Amino acid sequence: MSSLNPKQIDAIGVSDLPERLQDIIRRRDTVLGPGYQFSETIPVEFVSGFGAHLIDRDGNDYLDAFNNVQGVGHAHRHVADAVSRQIATVNTDTRYPQEALVAYAERLLATFPAELSKLSLPCTGSEANDLAIRVARFHTGGEGIIVTRWAFHGRTREVASFSPMLGAGSPLGPNVRLISAPDPRLCAPGQSLENYMRDQVRAAILDLERHGYRLAALIADSAFTSDGIFTHPMGFMQAMVDEVHAAGGVHIADEVQSGFAQLGDSMWGFSRHGVVPDIVTMGKAIGNGFPISGVAFRPEVSDEFGRKVSYFNTLGGRSLSIAAASAVLDVFEQENVRERVAVNGATLLAGLETLTRDSPYVAEIRGSGLYLGVEIIKDRGTPEPDPIRCESIIKNLRDRRVLISRTGSAGNVLKVRPPVAFTAADVSRFLETFGIVAKQRL
Amino acid sequence: MSSLNPKQIDAIGVSDLPERLQDIIRRRDTVLGPGYQFSETIPVEFVSGFGAHLIDRDGNDYLDAFNNVQGVGHAHRHVADAVSRQIATVNTDTRYPQEALVAYAERLLATFPAELSKLSLPCTGSEANDLAIRVARFHTGGEGIIVTRWAFHGRTREVASFSPMLGAGSPLGPNVRLISAPDPRLCAPGQSLENYMRDQVRAAILDLERHGYRLAALIADSAFTSDGIFTHPMGFMQAMVDEVHAAGGVHIADEVQSGFAQLGDSMWGFSRHGVVPDIVTMGKAIGNGFPISGVAFRPEVSDEFGRKVSYFNTLGGRSLSIAAASAVLDVFEQENVRERVAVNGATLLAGLETLTRDSPYVAEIRGSGLYLGVEIIKDRGTPEPDPIRCESIIKNLRDRRVLISRTGSAGNVLKVRPPVAFTAADVSRFLETFGIVAKQRL
Repeated sequence: MSSLNPKQIDAIGVSDLPERLQDIIRRRDTVLGPGYQFSETIPVEFVSGFGAHLIDRDGNDYLDAFNNVQGVGHAHRHVADAVSRQIATVNTDTRYPQEALVAYAERLLATFPAELSKLSLPCTGSEANDLAIRVARFHTGGEGIIVTRWAFHGRTREVASFSPMLGAGSPLGPNVRLISAPDPRLCAPGQSLENYMRDQVRAAILDLERHGYRLAALIADSAFTSDGIFTHPMGFMQAMVDEVHAAGGVHIADEVQSGFAQLGDSMWGFSRHGVVPDIVTMGKAIGNGFPISGVAFRPEVSDEFGRKVSYFNTLGGRSLSIAAASAVLDVFEQENVRERVAVNGATLLAGLETLTRDSPYVAEIRGSGLYLGVEIIKDRGTPEPDPIRCESIIKNLRDRRVLISRTGSAGNVLKVRPPVAFTAADVSRFLETFGIVAKQRL
Repeated sequence: MSSLNPKQIDAIGVSDLPERLQDIIRRRDTVLGPGYQFSETIPVEFVSGFGAHLIDRDGNDYLDAFNNVQGVGHAHRHVADAVSRQIATVNTDTRYPQEALVAYAERLLATFPAELSKLSLPCTGSEANDLAIRVARFHTGGEGIIVTRWAFHGRTREVASFSPMLGAGSPLGPNVRLISAPDPRLCAPGQSLENYMRDQVRAAILDLERHGYRLAALIADSAFTSDGIFTHPMGFMQAMVDEVHAAGGVHIADEVQSGFAQLGDSMWGFSRHGVVPDIVTMGKAIGNGFPISGVAFRPEVSDEFGRKVSYFNTLGGRSLSIAAASAVLDVFEQENVRERVAVNGATLLAGLETLTRDSPYVAEIRGSGLYLGVEIIKDRGTPEPDPIRCESIIKNLRDRRVLISRTGSAGNVLKVRPPVAFTAADVSRFLETFGIVAKQRL
């Protein structure tokens, strides 16, 4: 098994790559497993980075509009300095008193509505969602889980069982029900999106109960990113949450993708919908690439679990993780990240709309802040998904040293998801390059 | 709910602590949840560390014979430098080619028997065991899991379901069967430990099958540390594994506790038993406190999972994790860690045996390398566990600035588990202090 996707091998052949890369790929295929793969585009070896830029071994500067884990920027100096200082000093776990841990929890929780007043700190988004669902099951006594049709929430066994995006090889639980993402085009004539979503939740709850499962949780990515990025209209979620609460379940907002100002107009994606979740999970940008994640709870949901089960994560919330995560919050303040994302995101969106206005292949541009999706179809008249054209655009951008990806169940939504470090100059370069590719392909 | 254990509150009262600590504890109880607790002893705030030493805010030097996550030493300079360099350069994930990732995998796998030739790199021990069991279930098509009676393998929902040490609040799966740890005192007269363990595995498999569960895996800590540390005699495991294989299951060796030379005479605990597991999980010392973990597979067990399901961990195996983990292997070579552990562990064991030879309260001293257990009983004649005396010894050692803990289902086994950084001078200091406490309490 090669770590290149089969399609990549067909398209390029390992032997077309530089000798050094061929060597890495061969050795990698020998020792890594199971199922390590490269990013969709032809492999590039990056040796340094700054801001939203990655530099390859030949000194070429790639504009990174895909990797948002290093949200405040690749190799950000302030985060690097904080981690370097801490790792040379001490790195105790949460069983020892750490003033910095407490101060960080206070500071992070201050960005949430007051109801969310308890914080737990695992290491990965998967662990965050796994803990969230454990607590939800314990608190509700239910087992049923509702997610969207192409949701991805992580890869522990439990979380994989409600992550349909993982595909047919990874079984869904018998306690899991799927609803469609909030795509207004799916509403019946005259039906509001709110009613459409509420009816789906209600039907899922009834079906779960018919099969003997009481509801534990609705878990949803607040921007429905793996489903294809659905950010507008807002405001339909309270109706869904009301149904969930009426059935005894809790609402878990998965902010791994949509959190930390990625959507620009707020720190957290759920705020855009005017809801206050029962549990919120965080990952990615929280540590700027350092393995840390977070879960915020309403205490009435988590306290009994704390007393009767408890949770300890040896590697979560240690001094070193806290140094990284605190430095990230510093940068959010120092660099006015939220405002920058809102401004640059708006320019990026407007530019993309201008560049694709006359294209018969662009069905919609969606998104908010620095999380945008361009849905590619075969023809505006017959809205059939066109993943091939989508792939070709990604490849053409990559050849011009701009990195993006794609999303959605049909793989036909260009995913433009730069780190929140993206500057106005980065937006210009992106649009200029995208314009060249769009002229040829859109 | 206070983050002090109820017993701690009874014993000391928060108001007896320094004002600064009281403040941290109060604020911590307000913002952290669910179930954060302090280490068993009275909370101490450590502000720096080196080797096996932790320094508190007043400059007091504590000898750390408990925290072995920083295996090669607190704030080890070589690891700190490697992480500091990398975080200021670049930190890409495994979807990009990294020579250092491949080189690390080659180097780590070289410490295993040749059969274990594939490596995956999650972030925590829990994630490692979760992935191991996912692969085991997929490969075998079975669901049944056998663990020891007081096993701990982690805290994802799946892994918690076969971690009985978590207690009654955390339910075991209906597909989980418990066997007793390899305590030779449990054998019937004339029965070998090998037969005792084999019979237990056989009975567990039959009971699983009787309830409709085919076997997926036997997962065992190679030193049975949470059960009370059972390291001798060796050699009984192949008989267990043969039963597992005959039933179509796989053997997962959990080396989170026993790996990375903690047992002194070998890099991996399973080697002491002369078996080659199907899957090996690693954590703790692998990154010296940086969140990284590992899973080594026989390719015939993991390859189909790789093709049909695949596994990607956003935060696992990134450049930064690899920098930390590679530096740890450097130190193992530079400082001859394995030999040092063997020598210092032998001195420590001999010293403990001498100091407790005449005590009516010490039933047994067990262990290997730098993982030792002292079983405390009420009286040598009637071997009833004495967790109270055990606790009092831990507290007395702590008052003399030596940190240890305890283990076993009755909480009556002193756990002496220093980092592999422990020096000959550390052993002397430990034994001297232990001798003073033993005179009073043993």
